[in-house]
Amino acid sequence: MDAMEAILTRRSVRKMKAEAPERALLEQVIEAGRSAPSGSNSQSTHLIVITEKETLSVLKEKVQAAFAKMEEGPDTYVSLRNSIRASKKGNYVFHYGAPVLIVTANKKGYGNAMADSACVLENMMIASHALGLGSCWINQLHWLTEDAEVRGLLETLGLGADEFVTGGLIVGYADGAPGPKFPKKNGNPVTWA
Amino acid sequence: MDAMEAILTRRSVRKMKAEAPERALLEQVIEAGRSAPSGSNSQSTHLIVITEKETLSVLKEKVQAAFAKMEEGPDTYVSLRNSIRASKKGNYVFHYGAPVLIVTANKKGYGNAMADSACVLENMMIASHALGLGSCWINQLHWLTEDAEVRGLLETLGLGADEFVTGGLIVGYADGAPGPKFPKKNGNPVTWA
Repeated sequence: MDAMEAILTRRSVRKMKAEAPERALLEQVIEAGRSAPSGSNSQSTHLIVITEKETLSVLKEKVQAAFAKMEEGPDTYVSLRNSIRASKKGNYVFHYGAPVLIVTANKKGYGNAMADSACVLENMMIASHALGLGSCWINQLHWLTEDAEVRGLLETLGLGADEFVTGGLIVGYADGAPGPKFPKKNGNPVTWA
Repeated sequence: MDAMEAILTRRSVRKMKAEAPERALLEQVIEAGRSAPSGSNSQSTHLIVITEKETLSVLKEKVQAAFAKMEEGPDTYVSLRNSIRASKKGNYVFHYGAPVLIVTANKKGYGNAMADSACVLENMMIASHALGLGSCWINQLHWLTEDAEVRGLLETLGLGADEFVTGGLIVGYADGAPGPKFPKKNGNPVTWA
């Protein structure tokens, strides 16, 4: 797919088929992520690729339990609030049941951690779309990076003690048509100075 | 250009020709940035496009003056340290003399400000490369977002009082061949969990 077309037609895909993408496709997505630039070439964004159904299921339970313990306040971010509410009801599936979850982590205390990781994630979003896959940024593990249960599991999967979760991406085959571009608003604003 | 090729062959370009890209090309780059996803569809990354030579020159002087006032410590980030040292010598050109600088800003206090803005910047890096242009993330204005002189100028250019600078991108035609992929290291690490 043409690069500009891939960028302009990419959408966040949350509803996915159970069918897992083949490993060769996933490796292309990951290579795209690895190719992102980083501050002073730190190249310290760590990608943890989870494809095991059982692992995702255990992680999902721990995420739900962590949010269920939280209380929302009047200023709680809308997406975090939704996670807390659904978890308290016991029906929260943070990864939308997608067959693949790629967690990104970076060094604690590194000033460009979020910026670098987001570039990695954006590359993987565009690559996924170009390769016929759907994807969506998953931020829940970033919020729960210091939750003992969630962190404990992620450390057994490869998260370093000196790392924190910066974000994540679900990847799979889209089930249904994509949503509209710029839902509700008109896209990021531009000023020609 | 093919999407995967654009992602895999993009390099940070610092040495650029004085020739400015035509407006139609720049608009494509910006549309790519505007098409990035954002947390809960906030779509609040504000792009401020600076193409006036005189404006860039005044901004360059203010940036140099701001860094020249700073003192480095033993733990000062390598890139910030370099900016301070060069500025004290009076020969610091933070935008490498590029003909175009796109500043990104986002709402103060918004938790996904850096993540969202980085996705916008990464989209513009890939689009620039696909369209035959070079680009490089410029972080200096992020560090100086509360410097009175720098901020004052940026506010006259469109930066909102409720916004802070998240990053920036220089865009232009590359002057010379690109550098190696994964300089010094082997790219972001991957763990298959």
